[in-house]
Amino acid sequence: MLAGIQAGGTRFLVGVGTGPDDLRVREIPTRAPDPTVRALLDWLAPFAPEISALGVASFGPLELDRSSPDWGRIGPAPKIEWRGFRWGSLAERLGVPTALDTDANGAALGELRWGNGRGANDLLYGTVGTGIGGGAIANGRLLRGRIHPEMGHVLVPREPSDPYPGCCPSHGDCLEGLASGPALAGRWGRPAEELPPEHPAWRLEAWYLARGLANWVLTLAPERVVLGGGVLRQPGLLTALDAELRAVLAGYVELPSDLIRPSALGDRAGLLGALGLAEELLAARDPPSERGP
Amino acid sequence: MLAGIQAGGTRFLVGVGTGPDDLRVREIPTRAPDPTVRALLDWLAPFAPEISALGVASFGPLELDRSSPDWGRIGPAPKIEWRGFRWGSLAERLGVPTALDTDANGAALGELRWGNGRGANDLLYGTVGTGIGGGAIANGRLLRGRIHPEMGHVLVPREPSDPYPGCCPSHGDCLEGLASGPALAGRWGRPAEELPPEHPAWRLEAWYLARGLANWVLTLAPERVVLGGGVLRQPGLLTALDAELRAVLAGYVELPSDLIRPSALGDRAGLLGALGLAEELLAARDPPSERGP
Repeated sequence: MLAGIQAGGTRFLVGVGTGPDDLRVREIPTRAPDPTVRALLDWLAPFAPEISALGVASFGPLELDRSSPDWGRIGPAPKIEWRGFRWGSLAERLGVPTALDTDANGAALGELRWGNGRGANDLLYGTVGTGIGGGAIANGRLLRGRIHPEMGHVLVPREPSDPYPGCCPSHGDCLEGLASGPALAGRWGRPAEELPPEHPAWRLEAWYLARGLANWVLTLAPERVVLGGGVLRQPGLLTALDAELRAVLAGYVELPSDLIRPSALGDRAGLLGALGLAEELLAARDPPSERGP
Repeated sequence: MLAGIQAGGTRFLVGVGTGPDDLRVREIPTRAPDPTVRALLDWLAPFAPEISALGVASFGPLELDRSSPDWGRIGPAPKIEWRGFRWGSLAERLGVPTALDTDANGAALGELRWGNGRGANDLLYGTVGTGIGGGAIANGRLLRGRIHPEMGHVLVPREPSDPYPGCCPSHGDCLEGLASGPALAGRWGRPAEELPPEHPAWRLEAWYLARGLANWVLTLAPERVVLGGGVLRQPGLLTALDAELRAVLAGYVELPSDLIRPSALGDRAGLLGALGLAEELLAARDPPSERGP
């Protein structure tokens, strides 16, 4: 049995199982690290003897270098209480091998393994909600690089008639600052989910997201893009984004007609990806070719 | 002996050898495909019996999928005469196994193998000259994705006081349209190499390049960036670009102090990378573990 944790800014999902059809899940609201970790461990306790590995897909920034003494440490995250928290401490208390990656990479792996990324060798996963993030599979493997990508913060042109200054505390009008859920709320004065489909907010949202996505696609050349997150549940937005992306790229890069697909795993993409991380960790420790008969 | 071809918009380099210290090179101006290919083959002819593989690092867009019948075909390139040219036809006439990648990926591989990218597992190579391009090594391997990246065409914010509309035929004011050599010449009315160091052109150039580089770095998280191309030979530009990049990212992503390095191989990075491609092709066909004693 594998265990997974999807750590988000608003809530955590913790689960045990082996995949989408064999999964027990619990939702835990994100509070300070101590009570949150206690709730996670309490829920996992009855399964602990059977758990062979844990995967964690977490908000960041995160230290992912396993050779670093700071492995698993959360950096200057927007959730101030969580800065300096170490995932290694939870792993130690649970006492099982633990794999860690970003929430976006976790979701990318989840979609690759069980969702709309299946079969892709070069996959991009993007999420637009409270924040904007991207995870990628390159040459069949999770792209981590040094530390990890922070794709939500790419810079994009400004729509000339848009006076909104952006809401990213670090960059102001980066993509996340202009097109995340809080940016929609800040620009239009009410939450994204209260903006009706005919509201001009959505045309502008497609305008910005298409330019951010263009930058990701031009840099990574994914064969498929899976998009998730609360904002993208807006009816018609994915279609508008697809059309705007093609207009922006102007035929310079040939795109397959079904490049963009919605997330198949929805809110559970990161949790399932965490199970995938745990599975990969076990496979790396115990390669099939070295297993006994 | 390996052969390499670096195919550029102005000139080709063709060479034979095994690396920077064992390399015979010939420069051939880029004309129409027929006379250019004839000149390449004429120069290679005396070495042909000894050549075990050819690598080509070419301008594009290019079909790189070896399983495609269009492998090696040049797409809608700015060099109109070359559209539809097939590298496979040259490979057939030479009669040796041939590896192909973009000019930027070739240069990335050259710098990884013999230049300022040595030792990096996640490397970004960027070039700013007649065009802007980027190549990447991710998880130790060339990043190709579907077709290949076209990083030079990422979109960036506009410097508010800059009225220049951009010169990219496809996108207008993408990064290449705003910051390539032709963009400098178009904006300021004289070639980049005639703009003195104190000219405001260079501050603006660092402004735009830093934002393009920020988008690449946020998406790929390279541990090292090697930069080449004629425009970046401008004294002080790399230093200004480095400072501007750090200002733009505002500490959100921690960057090593020596993230950015100049190209060590200069004009030959792509040619040496082409030799590297040829070497990789041979290694894949004849893995070391399967070689005889």
